[in-house]
Amino acid sequence: MLAALLNGSPIDQPQQALSIEDRGLSYGDGLFETMLLRNGTIRFVGDHLARLHRGCDRLQIAQCPEESLLVDFDKLSRTSREGIVKLIVTRGSSVRGYRANEALAPTRIAILYPPPDSAPQVIALRWCTTRLARNARLAGIKHLNRLEQVLAQNEWRDPAIAEGLMLDTEGEVVSAIASNLFIVSDGVLSTPDLRFCGVRGVMRQQVLTMAQRLGIEVKECSLWGDDILSASEVFLTNAIRGLRTVTALDQHSWKVGSVTSRLTQALETEA
Amino acid sequence: MLAALLNGSPIDQPQQALSIEDRGLSYGDGLFETMLLRNGTIRFVGDHLARLHRGCDRLQIAQCPEESLLVDFDKLSRTSREGIVKLIVTRGSSVRGYRANEALAPTRIAILYPPPDSAPQVIALRWCTTRLARNARLAGIKHLNRLEQVLAQNEWRDPAIAEGLMLDTEGEVVSAIASNLFIVSDGVLSTPDLRFCGVRGVMRQQVLTMAQRLGIEVKECSLWGDDILSASEVFLTNAIRGLRTVTALDQHSWKVGSVTSRLTQALETEA
Repeated sequence: MLAALLNGSPIDQPQQALSIEDRGLSYGDGLFETMLLRNGTIRFVGDHLARLHRGCDRLQIAQCPEESLLVDFDKLSRTSREGIVKLIVTRGSSVRGYRANEALAPTRIAILYPPPDSAPQVIALRWCTTRLARNARLAGIKHLNRLEQVLAQNEWRDPAIAEGLMLDTEGEVVSAIASNLFIVSDGVLSTPDLRFCGVRGVMRQQVLTMAQRLGIEVKECSLWGDDILSASEVFLTNAIRGLRTVTALDQHSWKVGSVTSRLTQALETEA
Repeated sequence: MLAALLNGSPIDQPQQALSIEDRGLSYGDGLFETMLLRNGTIRFVGDHLARLHRGCDRLQIAQCPEESLLVDFDKLSRTSREGIVKLIVTRGSSVRGYRANEALAPTRIAILYPPPDSAPQVIALRWCTTRLARNARLAGIKHLNRLEQVLAQNEWRDPAIAEGLMLDTEGEVVSAIASNLFIVSDGVLSTPDLRFCGVRGVMRQQVLTMAQRLGIEVKECSLWGDDILSASEVFLTNAIRGLRTVTALDQHSWKVGSVTSRLTQALETEA
């Protein structure tokens, strides 16, 4: 890491910083955001903070004042104007037991990492065998219970495969491990509706908004394996890598399509 | 807390101990055990360590040498011979990203808390509205992804209700929030089979073994709400509270039954 703040104060020894009684550790009782710091500014900062706010609401975690978060980001950007900022907010520290005292002060951790490496934006995928459990109560938000993603990501080591697609336990396609999924079929752009699991990505929303602006028909719906294989275009999105075109999934291959190209260009010219 | 060890070393400042990059915090990427320290010895220590071992196997986390864990417990027992020992083992500390380096050294945290308060062993329950997601990949082990339990536990504050029963997302009864569930119907002892979610409790296994020794018929199976309401006896188990008799669930009530009494007595005379 390049720099880190714990509740706004610089951490000199990141190896010895956090309470062992923090509920983020005990139960994954918190949320996170991973954001792109570009030219000294966090891209889509309002969208990231809005999702964090929704997550805190859903989990009934006290809101961190937006101002304190913005001050954290500003401090980190003095170390480097380019990088990745990871923000973790937990319910705070408490003694043993699931029940949380309502008066707990949330823990706020902001870490600055170097910018992403220049990996290709045209990628190959695989199917993961690890499934995502369905629980509408936790769907959409970016909480800290991520064992399924850890297990999925550790299914392969081949660096030629950039990402893995995940099904839920009923066989619906949800997303890639750390990216949202879009397909184009008959000119219509579709993405899983994430009603049972998955994270509502900041870049996913950017793509949906941009597609509507460009007059592309958009659907949020159930998608299954066959829908992916019969699609004419496939791409992934996340806040760090932006839009990545998928040209291979196991033995299946696609060419770079026109809808993907239009969206890529439109998003690049966007602020 | 009374005392704490991080990777075997005493922690003087528990508020500043753990790496903010620990994967236990980032993803709930780890396991825990909560154990009863009684007269200087951890009750059922072999069963707890066996479950931890199975959990590490399932999540492909490097095993902590059993000897180092026993040394930790011995050190803590010098502070107090009575208490609750919470052990957390995480995959270790790493930079951003779900993928784990295979060479990571696990983080090991052992915390000693005061003994349980002398709450009644005859209790009232409620139904929780928070559901448990189904994922056989994570069922049975005591991993750190516990947001569902946190949400369930925070559904009520009435201290007269000691525990809450949880259904999975398909409506099957799984367990209480921090206890396993048993019912008696027509003299047969039944408990949810936990094939999709829930934790295989150490005390649950003790009860199953003891029941067989006493010649009580035992079934691990699917249970639904009606099965609970039509049962003649209901009780909960966990490693800290042992066996607790349930006499009320919302408006429904039960008397203390003979199977529950026999098991309670037999377990008390056990080492």
